[in-house]
Amino acid sequence: MKTLMAMGGALNSKKPEVLREFVRRAGGRAARIVILPQASSLADTGPGYITQFLALEAQSATALEFYRRDEAGAQPQIQSLREATGVFIAGGNQMRLSILYGGTALETELHAAYQRGCVIGGTSAGAAILSKTMIAYGKTGPTPRERIAQFIPGFGFTDKFVFDMHFRQRDRLGRLIYAVATCPAVLGVGVDEDTAAIVEDDTTISVCGSGGITIIDGSQIANTDVAEVEKGGPVAVSGLTIHVLTKDCCYSRETRAALLPEKALLSE
Amino acid sequence: MKTLMAMGGALNSKKPEVLREFVRRAGGRAARIVILPQASSLADTGPGYITQFLALEAQSATALEFYRRDEAGAQPQIQSLREATGVFIAGGNQMRLSILYGGTALETELHAAYQRGCVIGGTSAGAAILSKTMIAYGKTGPTPRERIAQFIPGFGFTDKFVFDMHFRQRDRLGRLIYAVATCPAVLGVGVDEDTAAIVEDDTTISVCGSGGITIIDGSQIANTDVAEVEKGGPVAVSGLTIHVLTKDCCYSRETRAALLPEKALLSE
Repeated sequence: MKTLMAMGGALNSKKPEVLREFVRRAGGRAARIVILPQASSLADTGPGYITQFLALEAQSATALEFYRRDEAGAQPQIQSLREATGVFIAGGNQMRLSILYGGTALETELHAAYQRGCVIGGTSAGAAILSKTMIAYGKTGPTPRERIAQFIPGFGFTDKFVFDMHFRQRDRLGRLIYAVATCPAVLGVGVDEDTAAIVEDDTTISVCGSGGITIIDGSQIANTDVAEVEKGGPVAVSGLTIHVLTKDCCYSRETRAALLPEKALLSE
Repeated sequence: MKTLMAMGGALNSKKPEVLREFVRRAGGRAARIVILPQASSLADTGPGYITQFLALEAQSATALEFYRRDEAGAQPQIQSLREATGVFIAGGNQMRLSILYGGTALETELHAAYQRGCVIGGTSAGAAILSKTMIAYGKTGPTPRERIAQFIPGFGFTDKFVFDMHFRQRDRLGRLIYAVATCPAVLGVGVDEDTAAIVEDDTTISVCGSGGITIIDGSQIANTDVAEVEKGGPVAVSGLTIHVLTKDCCYSRETRAALLPEKALLSE
């Protein structure tokens, strides 16, 4: 099975429910985790996550510590990725990741790892970069507006979903609606802080963590003026379908339907 | 025709597009406007709006200045309302309005005015109180959570819609989804600042102003656990339909469909 975990940032380090689920899916005590720390500008990001993953009883955890493109793809890095059962991408600025890894041998290895079942997880910027089209930066808050978000290519493990993180906390509905309105074939997934959207086989999404995720489905959009609006004006979009999902809920891209945990089902 | 104008607060006083539309619908140069200033705690709220409405060439503007229940319903107040073509309810704390007007002769006169075609408009708290069930207060920002919003009865000009103001600016999606999830028969209408949702005959909504409105339709909700969640936990809701509408868009409660201005229609 192929697995992505898009984490919403601000993970709770005292109740590490999300990282525990990541380690569990990566093999638990057999998990060999490789950390990509470069989106962060803090020197202790790699060592900090190593400590956390070892505390969660992963078998091993190592960080790929390099900060120049010509250092990407050294043999020990390649070897670590080939042995990894989980790859964790830290938060910060997602453009640092795309600039450093894009088109390198390491990027190829990341895709090979994903295809053979290595769990790929990232938080905040590390989650944004999972998708083919990622929101690189944008304005928060208001109604969707022309150019409220700017897109650049991410690592591209999926082209079915686009993720936005710190979702409620930073009021990013406007820019995620904008992303979906401009590309209705892609499902928008807004992930709250301390929460993860877990994507299996590019099809189903489940939720873990203390917050919620918001799935924006543009396939039923009746009308939008997104192509006509100029100069940052507000954008109209009619007929979005939205699902707000919490822990243990799941959603299928194929049926476009959500399942809530059994005790909550209205119909039972 | 019966008309409500729910305005999102923070009206632009230099480009008073929303108040100009209110005066226009109240009769333009024949408009006789009565202001309810009590939600505000500022002494110059009434005089301030009088100045604005006269500048917009209304025929007359007067404020009902009283701050005790036993002063509600004096004959000059009643007379003003009987002659009014527009009633404007200022912003502040909506509970001050319900406490002061609820059950008085003035409230009866307000309903009579609405029924005979007097335009009833309000901004911020003054818009919240238009509906039968109003969001009295609540937490901003996060995912819908158990008890994120508290409801009390408003003036009740409509029981088909519930309004929430400063919508994007204060990140109120969570609480409006909560309101709709608990009562799917009511359409949630989130109104941005300097923007108005104009409700005609309790059926159609159009938009004026610089921002947008967000209509949340819960009639297709597939499942929600809103009745089960405890202790402020996050609420799951699947299958909401959302329309983000801007100036000159309109929406019909009967067809549950939105119309965008012609030039923006995808289908044409």
